[in-house]
Amino acid sequence: MNLFDPSSVQHWLDLAGIFVFAVSGALLAVRKDLDIVGMAVLAEATGLGGGLLRDLVIGAVPPAAVTDLGYLLTPLAATVLVFFLHPQVERINRAVMVFDAAGLGLFCVTGTVKAHAHGLGPAAAVAMGLATAAGGGVLRDMLANEVPSLLRRDREVYAVPALVGATAVALLIHTGQLTPVTSGLSATLAFVLRLLALRYNWRAPRAWQPRGRNAGPDVPGV
Amino acid sequence: MNLFDPSSVQHWLDLAGIFVFAVSGALLAVRKDLDIVGMAVLAEATGLGGGLLRDLVIGAVPPAAVTDLGYLLTPLAATVLVFFLHPQVERINRAVMVFDAAGLGLFCVTGTVKAHAHGLGPAAAVAMGLATAAGGGVLRDMLANEVPSLLRRDREVYAVPALVGATAVALLIHTGQLTPVTSGLSATLAFVLRLLALRYNWRAPRAWQPRGRNAGPDVPGV
Amino acid sequence: MNLFDPSSVQHWLDLAGIFVFAVSGALLAVRKDLDIVGMAVLAEATGLGGGLLRDLVIGAVPPAAVTDLGYLLTPLAATVLVFFLHPQVERINRAVMVFDAAGLGLFCVTGTVKAHAHGLGPAAAVAMGLATAAGGGVLRDMLANEVPSLLRRDREVYAVPALVGATAVALLIHTGQLTPVTSGLSATLAFVLRLLALRYNWRAPRAWQPRGRNAGPDVPGV
Repeated sequence: MNLFDPSSVQHWLDLAGIFVFAVSGALLAVRKDLDIVGMAVLAEATGLGGGLLRDLVIGAVPPAAVTDLGYLLTPLAATVLVFFLHPQVERINRAVMVFDAAGLGLFCVTGTVKAHAHGLGPAAAVAMGLATAAGGGVLRDMLANEVPSLLRRDREVYAVPALVGATAVALLIHTGQLTPVTSGLSATLAFVLRLLALRYNWRAPRAWQPRGRNAGPDVPGV
Repeated sequence: MNLFDPSSVQHWLDLAGIFVFAVSGALLAVRKDLDIVGMAVLAEATGLGGGLLRDLVIGAVPPAAVTDLGYLLTPLAATVLVFFLHPQVERINRAVMVFDAAGLGLFCVTGTVKAHAHGLGPAAAVAMGLATAAGGGVLRDMLANEVPSLLRRDREVYAVPALVGATAVALLIHTGQLTPVTSGLSATLAFVLRLLALRYNWRAPRAWQPRGRNAGPDVPGV
Repeated sequence: MNLFDPSSVQHWLDLAGIFVFAVSGALLAVRKDLDIVGMAVLAEATGLGGGLLRDLVIGAVPPAAVTDLGYLLTPLAATVLVFFLHPQVERINRAVMVFDAAGLGLFCVTGTVKAHAHGLGPAAAVAMGLATAAGGGVLRDMLANEVPSLLRRDREVYAVPALVGATAVALLIHTGQLTPVTSGLSATLAFVLRLLALRYNWRAPRAWQPRGRNAGPDVPGV
């Protein structure tokens, strides 16, 4: 394998993305006081769950998550790191979230491209891009018995940057403009949007509240 | 597309069923104080989850849930409705439950028929009919971090009407009597049973309690 | 069907394993005060969930869980048993856990063998062996809205015996030594390890705690 050919670069990027996602899974296991089995299961689920779900839906079985040994082992490496160094990893949590945003950018692009390659239409491919980027985190939170972070209004938007990146890719495919460069720009767009969301605490709105009704916890002092 | 040919009628009924299921998902998101992403994800999961699970199990991939653009977009329409009008929709909650019962009747029939068409035996087809009708609601509750309504003894029976409708269809297939009319009657049977369950608070029994043991919260005043 | 040919023995063992897993699902439903629908759904999910997940991943659709009538009906038999006799079944809970350990041994072996037969590599086959043995229990706990027992540090190790059994099978396949006898020994190895874990309260470690930090509930008297 030539480390510098494009498919090899893609593979290393995938492994890096799986690793950072898996770190977030193992960290949640530590916070929930689970054991090392819980850490490894949450790391695998977070790192591989989104791609696994996409591959089951598009009919790409057995999924890459189980046929590629590197994919299977990478979350275990993340588990070992977090097992020994979780206080240090927690301390650099902002850096972890930057890497996680990079994974989000990467996977919303690759997920959309793969779904299109398996014959899905643009809207379905965008949905699969979102599933690839966010599905692992949802599975992680479901396994940890928490309301998925993706759905909560007290968390910075995660789905919107992924949707923007995936939609950009679908438009590029539709117009015949998808190249390694434009793919990279789409991933960067999603990445930067997620960083801005983190920096400026962008939240998605909750359901519209009619005037005069108690607006709930949004109102200071209530 | 001719709006009056049978397959077109079927398609419009499917979309209507997905819409009412999706409304229940978006409403739960509002009650749990999730943001609009949570509303859309719960709407998609409730509207499409049952059919998606069935299609993965019977090997019909990619599932209709992602190949049909109308299926993907309908839950988003339900999300928009609930976003702006959730107080009004909550107020007509009994009407929403009537429409939900109609969706239950529809999907237990179409799920059983599709599973049979993919070669499953009668018992498995009935199970898939139940999964189609009830799977979305289970996924909705799991995502919202609640014990699924389907399993709770303080809720009116949902699975039993679906099982009756699905079993009727399996018997009709077995005896060569399945027609649009008998399908419609099976769906109506499940629909009416569900309405009666709601009207008369039919609950499924919990495990048999030996005499003399503390019967728990069933005993008034305890 | 000859009751004494090997594939028939295998089939009866499978049904026995599904039955004991399903009992644990129905019991959890009783403990959570769910109704009989909840008992049946948790019994089906626990008995069949692991194999279903494996079959979806390896592309063996429709899964054995729905094509074999005995597989579908066995969890219902477990539901009936627990419905009427749950106080007695709870009283022999240690015996139930011994049978559950036997199911664990059986399914980690058969899951690994089936995954290999569908072309998966050794590491992926081991992962599928673990998924077959432990997936149903994880699904059971997720449906019941609990942190999966598999992940918790206050429970005796479950994943490690399954991993050891599955790894033994993968090594036997790799060296061409897999026979009914060596399969049986691998299952027995996992079974005995699980019994020892139960007997001596073997727990998996949680993440390493630096000296001087509050070790939390592990420290007696804190």
